[in-house]
Amino acid sequence: MKKNILVIPGDGIGQEVTTWGKKVLEKIAEKYNHEFAFDEAIMGHAAIEVTGNPLPDETLEKAKASDAILFGAIGHIKYDNDPTAKVRPEQGLLKIRKELGLYANLRPILLFDELLDASSLKPEILKGTDILFFRELTGDVYFGEKKRSEDNNFASDLMNYNRYEVERIARKAFEAARTRGKKLCSVDKANVLETSRLWREVVQELAKEYSDVETEHMFIDNAAMQLVKNPKKFDVVLTANLFGDILTDEASQIAGSMGMLASASIGDGTGFFEPIHGSAHDIAGQNKANPLASILSVALMLDISFGLQEEAKTVTTAVADTLKAGWRTGDIANAQTPADKILGTVEMGEKVLA
Amino acid sequence: MKKNILVIPGDGIGQEVTTWGKKVLEKIAEKYNHEFAFDEAIMGHAAIEVTGNPLPDETLEKAKASDAILFGAIGHIKYDNDPTAKVRPEQGLLKIRKELGLYANLRPILLFDELLDASSLKPEILKGTDILFFRELTGDVYFGEKKRSEDNNFASDLMNYNRYEVERIARKAFEAARTRGKKLCSVDKANVLETSRLWREVVQELAKEYSDVETEHMFIDNAAMQLVKNPKKFDVVLTANLFGDILTDEASQIAGSMGMLASASIGDGTGFFEPIHGSAHDIAGQNKANPLASILSVALMLDISFGLQEEAKTVTTAVADTLKAGWRTGDIANAQTPADKILGTVEMGEKVLA
Ligand SMILES: CC(C)[C@H](C(=O)O)[C@@H](O)C(=O)O
Ligand SMILES: CC(C)[C@H](C(=O)O)[C@@H](O)C(=O)O
Repeated sequence: MKKNILVIPGDGIGQEVTTWGKKVLEKIAEKYNHEFAFDEAIMGHAAIEVTGNPLPDETLEKAKASDAILFGAIGHIKYDNDPTAKVRPEQGLLKIRKELGLYANLRPILLFDELLDASSLKPEILKGTDILFFRELTGDVYFGEKKRSEDNNFASDLMNYNRYEVERIARKAFEAARTRGKKLCSVDKANVLETSRLWREVVQELAKEYSDVETEHMFIDNAAMQLVKNPKKFDVVLTANLFGDILTDEASQIAGSMGMLASASIGDGTGFFEPIHGSAHDIAGQNKANPLASILSVALMLDISFGLQEEAKTVTTAVADTLKAGWRTGDIANAQTPADKILGTVEMGEKVLA
Repeated sequence: MKKNILVIPGDGIGQEVTTWGKKVLEKIAEKYNHEFAFDEAIMGHAAIEVTGNPLPDETLEKAKASDAILFGAIGHIKYDNDPTAKVRPEQGLLKIRKELGLYANLRPILLFDELLDASSLKPEILKGTDILFFRELTGDVYFGEKKRSEDNNFASDLMNYNRYEVERIARKAFEAARTRGKKLCSVDKANVLETSRLWREVVQELAKEYSDVETEHMFIDNAAMQLVKNPKKFDVVLTANLFGDILTDEASQIAGSMGMLASASIGDGTGFFEPIHGSAHDIAGQNKANPLASILSVALMLDISFGLQEEAKTVTTAVADTLKAGWRTGDIANAQTPADKILGTVEMGEKVLA
C-alpha cells in the first residue's frame, strides 16, 4: 500500500511525540511492505512565529492532498495568559478541522491492565471499562459567531447546531455501537439548551432506525458524574463539541493519563490523528513527554484511514508489551514503579519500536 | 432570632428530603430559642400539574418575602424524554434564580472521613480535599436567547456575559479564598470562547487587587481532568454557570455521593438553599433518598443567611456523628457496610435529629 502522510508537529511537546509516531509508521511500512511517504508542515504557535498565521495556506493544501495527517499538539502559554490576543494558535486547529470537514472525533478510552494502578480511580471501578467517545467537532459554540462589545463590557458566543450536523455524527456513533456493546449514551443538556433539545430529537429519531442498539440520554452534569462513579456502564458515548471536550479529558483519568489517549478525527476527507493531550510547554524539550498517545494515534490511522487492521494491532500490541515489561514514562509511573523503569520520551519510543 | 423560611419541596424526592431539613430547623429553633416560621410553596413539575406554570406568582411572592428558602429538587422524566415540550419544570428553577438575583452558587465539597471509602476515587487521592465552588448562576448560555428555526432544522443558544456579572461573583470568590487556603482557580475556555476571554480578563484584573490570593486560570477540559486526578490541589474554584454545573456534579463523587452535597445560592436578596442532587424519580416515594444534603443545606442557611455559626456547626456535627456511628443510606453504603446499618430516608433523618 502506498500512502502520503503529513506530519504536523505543532507546538510544545508535539515535535517530540510525533517523531515517535512517525518512526513507528516507518517500521510498520518496512515490516509489512508498504510505502509511506512523509511530508511535514507547521501549525499553531510554531506557524504564527514564522508566518503570522496559525494555519498557513501551504499547510492546508498539503493537508488536503495527503492520505492522513499525524498531528502533535497545539497551544502556547503566552496566549493563554493574554485573553486579548487576536491571533491564537488554537485557531489553526479549529480551522483545519472545519476545512477538512472533520466532524467526528473518535476517542477510544483504551485501558491497559498494567496501568490500572496509575489512575486515581479504584482498580475495581476501572476494570473492564471500554468506552468509545464520538465528539462532534465542527459545530457548537466553538464555531458560532463571537462578539465583543466596543466598550469591552459584553461578550458572547453563539452555540448552534443544524439537524444534519447532529445526524451525520449520530449515525457514525450508532454504526460503531452495532459493532461493539450495542449501547449508545447521548449526552446533552436538553433541560436547559435548545441546541440540546434539537440534538435529543435527532438522536431519538435515529434510535428507531437502530433499534438493536440500546439508546440512553443523559444530561452532561450527570454524565460527568457517572463517568467517575461507574465508567464501566458506558459503551459508545455521543456528544457535542464542547461537552465532548470536557468529558474526554475527564475520561483520560480512566486510562491513567492523558499521555495514553489517542484520537481520530474523520469526516468528509483526509483523516486527522492526534493525542488528546495538549502542548505541555512545561515539560517540552525535556525528554519527559509520553510518546504512547502519538504511537496509538498511528494505530488509529492504520486502522481507520488505511483499513490496515493487522498493522494497527501490531502497534497496539507493541505498546501493551512495553507496558507489560514494566516500562513507564513519568506520567504513568506510580510510587511502586522502580526508578530504573521510568523512561524518557526517546527511550520509551525505542522500547516500543523494538 | 425570628425568621420566615419558605420550603419549596419541588419534584421527585424533594418532598422527602426537605421534610428532614425542616425538622432539623425546628429542632435548632427549639434548642437555641429561635423563632422559625415556615411556609410552603410549589415549583417545577408539581406546580405545572396544579397551575400550568413551573413558577406560580404566588410562589415567587412568598419567596421574595421570606428570609431564606429551603428547596428540594426539580425535574421530571416526562419532560426529559420530550424535547419538544414548551413548558418545563426547570424553567421554574431558572426563573426563581433570576428573579431573586441569585448570581452566586456556593457548593462546598465537604469530605467526611467516614465516607472516604464510598467514593470511586482512591482514599489517598481524596484525603484532605476541601473545595469551595463558586458557580455563576444567572448568566451564561442558560439565560441567553434561544432560537429554533421554523423548519426545525436549526437551534441556537446564546452564551453571554457582562463584565459586571463576572466581577460580582469573582469578588465573592476572592473574598472567600482569603478566609480559606488563599488559592483561587478560575476555570474557563479562553482558548476558544470570547465569553471566557472576557471572564479571564476580569479575573486577572481583580487578582491584582487580591494579590494575597494565589490565582490560577485553567481550561475547563483540564479542570475536569485535574479534579479527578488530584482534587486536593483545589481550594476555591470560580467558574461560569454551565462549567460549574458540570464540574460540581463531577466533584460530587469526591464526597462519595451527590446525596451528601448542599449548595447555597446568594446574591441580591433572599438566599436559596438546596441539595445539588436532582429529583431522582426512580427512587421517589420509596424511602430511599439520602436526606443529608438537605440537612447540610440547612447548615449553610443557618451560617450564610442567618449568621448562626454555632447552630450551623451543630447540624454539621450531628451529620458527622451519625456517619461516625456507622449509619448509611444506600447511596453512601459500600460492600463492607453491614445490612443493618443501611437506613431509609426517615430513619436516617431521625438519627441526625437524635
Ligand atoms: C486546543 C483546543 C482548542 C482543543 C479543543 O478544545 O477542541 C483541545 O482541547 C482538544 O480537545 O482537542
Ligand atoms: C435542573 C437544572 C436546570 C440545574 C442546572 O443545570 O442548573 C441543576 O442541574 C443544578 O445544577 O442545579
